[in-house]
Order: sequence, then structure tokens, then C-alpha cells
Amino acid sequence: MKVIVDLCVVPIDVGVSVSKYVAECQKVLQDAGLEHQLHAYGTNIEGEWDDVFAAIKRCHERVHALGAPRITTTIKVGTRTDREQSMQDKIDSVTESRP
Amino acid sequence: MKVIVDLCVVPIDVGVSVSKYVAECQKVLQDAGLEHQLHAYGTNIEGEWDDVFAAIKRCHERVHALGAPRITTTIKVGTRTDREQSMQDKIDSVTESRP
Amino acid sequence: MKVIVDLCVVPIDVGVSVSKYVAECQKVLQDAGLEHQLHAYGTNIEGEWDDVFAAIKRCHERVHALGAPRITTTIKVGTRTDREQSMQDKIDSVTESRP
Amino acid sequence: MKVIVDLCVVPIDVGVSVSKYVAECQKVLQDAGLEHQLHAYGTNIEGEWDDVFAAIKRCHERVHALGAPRITTTIKVGTRTDREQSMQDKIDSVTESRP
Repeated sequence: MKVIVDLCVVPIDVGVSVSKYVAECQKVLQDAGLEHQLHAYGTNIEGEWDDVFAAIKRCHERVHALGAPRITTTIKVGTRTDREQSMQDKIDSVTESRP
Repeated sequence: MKVIVDLCVVPIDVGVSVSKYVAECQKVLQDAGLEHQLHAYGTNIEGEWDDVFAAIKRCHERVHALGAPRITTTIKVGTRTDREQSMQDKIDSVTESRP
Repeated sequence: MKVIVDLCVVPIDVGVSVSKYVAECQKVLQDAGLEHQLHAYGTNIEGEWDDVFAAIKRCHERVHALGAPRITTTIKVGTRTDREQSMQDKIDSVTESRP
Repeated sequence: MKVIVDLCVVPIDVGVSVSKYVAECQKVLQDAGLEHQLHAYGTNIEGEWDDVFAAIKRCHERVHALGAPRITTTIKVGTRTDREQSMQDKIDSVTESRP
């Protein structure tokens, strides 16, 4: 099952700046060979369900290992059976529908 | 790794009422033996990371099997290494902090 | 326009326990006279759009005033024009659909 | 109070494709003069709290007016008092922290 995910990992009690931890998650996604795109409030990821969620688990493990005692993460997950759709397809589909 | 999750599964293109699909997800969680609590905008789940996410995947599979061609799900995931905390502990902790 | 909202306010850089800040938000909702229900990963709120979002803004203002330099909040918002539905209706509707 | 928001509006019971409705929301944000950036699972918005949330309310009104009887929206909201930060600053900050 193919998924498109929006991932936002928030380490708690590591100070006001969390970018070091988010960068570590980018590295996890990179190392997993997953298509991903950082935006201003999260990262979009595209791939097989099991691969994507294994990478998200690894993000939690790595962020805890870097010193965060607590993490709260928000995930949006989209699946569909009617047709294949990539992250770029989703953006194009909105852009082409502009009134 | 223990997680507390808030899960909100939204089937798309199945009509205005989605309760049949949400009820199916309740059954999946029940069958998985996972502690869970339905609320007005989702379901809280407590358990081991792999068990909880396997159940969430099964929810998507079941909801697609029931006829939904597309699903968008929102998940909040909390993990912590400083101490064990149950769903009820979280509620108690806020209730006891009331100003 | 009536809304049902799920609100989860996360203060950042205030230590590992955030319950004091969540309790302050409960007080804001209480003082606003809004129907609300705390659960293990947020609070459900029911009311008119403007009243609910004014209260959410006040939550951010109060949590900053209590000392949090940064806040990240997750909100789910439901509106419908086909019929009135309360938070309890949503729960009942799923419970009655159990397979 | 300045906010950075991630907005994902999901119209329910309008068929499997929702891009027409998302495009309408883009137009609302455009007309409101708000800085915004579409991504594969939502739209990031930057502006004053009241302006951004007035626009989000207008999105719900417009999407209902286009025929959607029900909408479920997910919003992430960030505020901070320690310093100003734009959407691009957030992306740069992660990019520069890459391990």
C-alpha cells in the first residue's frame, strides 16, 4: 500500500530551537531512500506504508538518542485505491484547478 | 517503545456519514487487544509502537475493503523516555494542575 | 457557523511536563462558557466558530504569558451544513454503527 | 501575534477528487494578501493571527458554498515570542543544521 505522509516531529524539553532534531529526521529519510520534501511546517514523504512508518519510528528513536526525553509528532497519511498519485501530482492537480 | 496515539481516520467519497468506517476501526483496535478510548474527534490508543501502527495499517486496509477509494488520516504520536505514562495519567496530570 | 474542534496546545521549552499549560487552556475554555471535553491527547470543543477560535487565540496568549516562548498547536475543525451534530452525537453515531 | 500555519481542508461527500476545493482555498488566501505556499499535503500560511484565521473561516464558507456538506480540516499553528521567524527561516534553519 502506497502512502503520502506529512510528518512533523516536535521534540520537547530540548530548548526553543528544534532544527537539529528535524535535520536528523531528514537524514533518516534520506538514508531510507524515501522520496521526501521539507516544507515550513513538516516534511512530505512518499513510499510504501511499511518503509515510511519504519522510517518514522527510526526518527523517534534517533531524536530520543540525541537527548529529547519526550516527542510529540503529528502525521497525516493518505492512501487511495482508485489510482496512483505522487506528491507532485497532488500539487499539479490543485494548480490546474485554480478558478 | 511505548506510544500514546490519537487516531482520526477519514474515508473520502463514501457519503456524508463516516461512522460505519470509524466503527470498523474500533473493531480492529479491539481485535488487536489494544487499550483505546473513542472521543468526539478521534480515538486514543495506548500500546507498543509496532502493535499500534500495525493496527492503524489494518484500519486503512479494512476501510478500503469496505469501499472507500481514498482515506486521509490524522495521527498524533507521543513517546517519552523519562517515565511511563498511561492515557489516564495524562488526563489526571492536567486535572490536578487546574489553576 | 457551528464547529466541533479538537485542540492540542504544546508549549515548547518549558520542561518535560506541560500539564500546567494545558490546565490553563481548560480554564480559558471554561471562562469562555464553551462546551469542552478533555481527553488523553487534546480537548474537544463545541461552539460557534468565532467563539471557539477567540478562545484558542486566548490560550496561546495565556500560555505565552505563563512563560512559554514557543507554542505549536494542532487543531482539527469540523463543520457541516447538512445537519446539526453535537460532540456526543458523533460518539453515539460510531457506537451505534459497531459491526 | 504572528503565526505560521499549516492548513489542510478536506471536503467530505464531494467525490474522490478534492482539488477544486483546495484551489478555491488558495484563491481565498491570495485574495486575503497572505503569504502562502502550497505543498503536497496542505498549505503553509504566514501572517497575523486574526488575518490568517479569518481567511481559514472564509475557506470553510467558500467550500460549503461550492457544495460540500461537510468539511474536516487540520491546522498546525506556531507562535513564538522569542524572535520573528518566517516560513523560509524555518526551512533554512533545518537545512543549515543537517548533520
